[in-house]
Amino acid sequence: MEWKPDLSSETPLYSQIKDFIKNKISLGEWAVGTKIPSQRALAERFDVNRSTVVTALSDLIAEGLLEGNTRGGTRVINNSWNLLAASPPPDWSSYVQAGTYYPNQPAIQHINRAEFQDGIIRLGTGELSPELLPSEEMKKIFENSSLNPFSLGYEEPKGNQYLREQIAAYLQGIGVQTSPSNILIVSGSLQALQLISIGLLQRGSSILLEKPSYLYSVHVFQSSAIKLVGLPMDEEGIQTNQISRYKEGYNASLLYTIPTFHNPTSTLMSEPRRQELMRICADEGLPIIEDDAYRELWFETPPPPPLKSRDPNALVLYLGSLSKTLSPGLRIGWVVAPEPVIDRLADIKMQNDYGSSSVSQWAAAEWLGRGLYQEHLVYVREQLKRRRDLAVQLLKSNFTEIASWSVPAGGFYIWVRLIVDVPMQMLFERALKAGILLNPGSIYDRNAGSYLRISYAYAKLHELEWGIEYLAEMIKELVGVSKK
Amino acid sequence: MEWKPDLSSETPLYSQIKDFIKNKISLGEWAVGTKIPSQRALAERFDVNRSTVVTALSDLIAEGLLEGNTRGGTRVINNSWNLLAASPPPDWSSYVQAGTYYPNQPAIQHINRAEFQDGIIRLGTGELSPELLPSEEMKKIFENSSLNPFSLGYEEPKGNQYLREQIAAYLQGIGVQTSPSNILIVSGSLQALQLISIGLLQRGSSILLEKPSYLYSVHVFQSSAIKLVGLPMDEEGIQTNQISRYKEGYNASLLYTIPTFHNPTSTLMSEPRRQELMRICADEGLPIIEDDAYRELWFETPPPPPLKSRDPNALVLYLGSLSKTLSPGLRIGWVVAPEPVIDRLADIKMQNDYGSSSVSQWAAAEWLGRGLYQEHLVYVREQLKRRRDLAVQLLKSNFTEIASWSVPAGGFYIWVRLIVDVPMQMLFERALKAGILLNPGSIYDRNAGSYLRISYAYAKLHELEWGIEYLAEMIKELVGVSKK
Repeated sequence: MEWKPDLSSETPLYSQIKDFIKNKISLGEWAVGTKIPSQRALAERFDVNRSTVVTALSDLIAEGLLEGNTRGGTRVINNSWNLLAASPPPDWSSYVQAGTYYPNQPAIQHINRAEFQDGIIRLGTGELSPELLPSEEMKKIFENSSLNPFSLGYEEPKGNQYLREQIAAYLQGIGVQTSPSNILIVSGSLQALQLISIGLLQRGSSILLEKPSYLYSVHVFQSSAIKLVGLPMDEEGIQTNQISRYKEGYNASLLYTIPTFHNPTSTLMSEPRRQELMRICADEGLPIIEDDAYRELWFETPPPPPLKSRDPNALVLYLGSLSKTLSPGLRIGWVVAPEPVIDRLADIKMQNDYGSSSVSQWAAAEWLGRGLYQEHLVYVREQLKRRRDLAVQLLKSNFTEIASWSVPAGGFYIWVRLIVDVPMQMLFERALKAGILLNPGSIYDRNAGSYLRISYAYAKLHELEWGIEYLAEMIKELVGVSKK
Repeated sequence: MEWKPDLSSETPLYSQIKDFIKNKISLGEWAVGTKIPSQRALAERFDVNRSTVVTALSDLIAEGLLEGNTRGGTRVINNSWNLLAASPPPDWSSYVQAGTYYPNQPAIQHINRAEFQDGIIRLGTGELSPELLPSEEMKKIFENSSLNPFSLGYEEPKGNQYLREQIAAYLQGIGVQTSPSNILIVSGSLQALQLISIGLLQRGSSILLEKPSYLYSVHVFQSSAIKLVGLPMDEEGIQTNQISRYKEGYNASLLYTIPTFHNPTSTLMSEPRRQELMRICADEGLPIIEDDAYRELWFETPPPPPLKSRDPNALVLYLGSLSKTLSPGLRIGWVVAPEPVIDRLADIKMQNDYGSSSVSQWAAAEWLGRGLYQEHLVYVREQLKRRRDLAVQLLKSNFTEIASWSVPAGGFYIWVRLIVDVPMQMLFERALKAGILLNPGSIYDRNAGSYLRISYAYAKLHELEWGIEYLAEMIKELVGVSKK
């Protein structure tokens, strides 16, 4: 994918690397002021010894293009043109730091990059395995597009009308009565949260949520100066006894919850808890964001109906998505809410991206409209159940002495608590070196440093097997080491 | 599309409408507190006399579900359940007003809605006509997807690698040297601006731009508390003599420009002006956003090379898009910038929507990679030129006495200045009633109240013909009327 020096060339490796870097500088890709990657990172990227990189960089420093500093960082200080320019080029680093949006947590940035390394085993990834994604059926849908041709133009602000009709019909099946004008098509649930954060909430407000929560792993609310206030969970879901106190104390505007197969714990909120939550939020006039992306991924019995299906007072902004069940790449999700809210969010979406891909919307509508989605769900449930069973069995064989967990009734994740004292950062790095990518619990709750989110959805079966076994070995070894 | 009362039913129309509204209220679609549409709007929506609506609403007021006020507005005050609830439901209107993002201008909201009315002639729409969109070829691309199968999973943070390679190759053809790691795939240029506004700029900063500008028609920067500062244009493009003074006076962080077939004026920045602009911005250390969405839509001769092709100091953030040339519905555009900037924007995009549709990215890469895009461009240029010629001829025949304009050398628009005194709001409304949708100049510049952005790209040829003729008649009549 990336350029690497040509081992068969007569030009020495360090010289090829010099030319490559010079070219990047002269094209402005590494503009003056850019801090270039570390020697170690460059050596990895070019697949050469670090000494080769050091030689190349020393030459470029001598030529006045780069400047090293005492802490080991190297910056671009010149290019062939800027010596002629009257004033220095813009300091892009200061721009990068000026924006109001929070960067991803370093751990997440690391994971986002590592996910695309060749041959990596992704033990924490919250996606269906590529082998479970229906590529062949998708191809057929496009081949049959004459039946209901797709448009290449923009869609209506709320999204394709036919898709919204199909979603309304689908929602009826899970107990949610609504109509197309109360549905907004979004590019996945995350975008829905982004629109809510800039469309419905004031800077300085706060929202309540489960702790741990997926929501801590992104900065969609914090970047709009909205605070997240975590409530503890138990095996029935979010604990409701504190809601009134927290609502008052933090002047909370919303409660965000994933009642069905919660991310990262897979907790399924019980029916009594759902009723209690709705009662308390109605009493408090506290609206709810119900994120229901995992609902269809049940194994033994369907989950209780959504909060939205018992919502006469229009408390609930309901989020659904095809990303966890059909195809993350389609980027299709939906929001169901009172009409003024949908109108507002649609208006902002038009100013953000002019609506979601019409090709994706068309394909989603075909999946729903032809009944193929329901068929596919049956298949995915079966496959995920097998994977869950395998993962649980592997944990039993390898993790019994070192961890505890609950068996999920649906969804993607096992929330594994290590009961031995493991330096998690070290585990993460060692695992990555061995080709295993982990999602540490601290991403979802700063205090969940002893947890791992293990996903049985993504890796291939033999990867799961090898990965979980190897991970257990590594932990046991680390515990041994740290006991020394 | 929307529900309408059944004329053939024995149930009276007002009674059908009552039931419809009751249902909306009881489902929470019109939650308690919602201001429902005006009597006139409802009459239009249901295709009935206003008196029928008045009867239905009066009944619902009598039943205690609605409340009218003296200024004619009607609100939902009860539903069948909330009388039992301990406290009132959330006041969604206050949420809608609380969000930090600016709503679209009322004129734009109106246009966004009107665009999807049946049979409307869209004389201002900045899109290719559906008949110019290559639906058949797109279908074939999907049929041949076995050659290079598409993924249904997420893509890398910067976007699909193969697509970025194709874009790098395409950019080389227009003089821009870059590599895939300096390219970010976005869901259209508007999203690029959104990412820049939250990723690179401080609240309270300002950006310089042409006046008029497309950018005034969205609130992407203003919603992040960034000010737009307009610079005058002449026939060679943005006037450069004020840049230094404005940069200092407003502490501007960026300059946004559409040098090639500017939206809405179609101005093509001359080669000397491009050089001057680059020189001044280099001297000032003022970075540039170059929005180049219209570049390929030239008629007689290709435009001068992009600013980005003469940018050794990495001043330019370059935006390209397939929306104006191939398919707006794909939602595929790109940003070219120094690597730290691209990394930053990619990181934020991951937190906003986890990347653009992978199906769209795949299709875009196929168009570029198989050479089909270049073929399609030849066709689009021909067709657009014919349309430009027709529009200019129609203007000559009908608008000579009442307006002035320049003939565009590319792009979609003729920036028509009415030289008679027409009440523009009235013209807009009358035209809409007659089935013609206009884009008034004031959308792009508060002081351009006497301008219209006429687009020859969208309407069918006979619609263009009838629409422009009818519009001229209407204006002449209005001028007559206003002279009385």
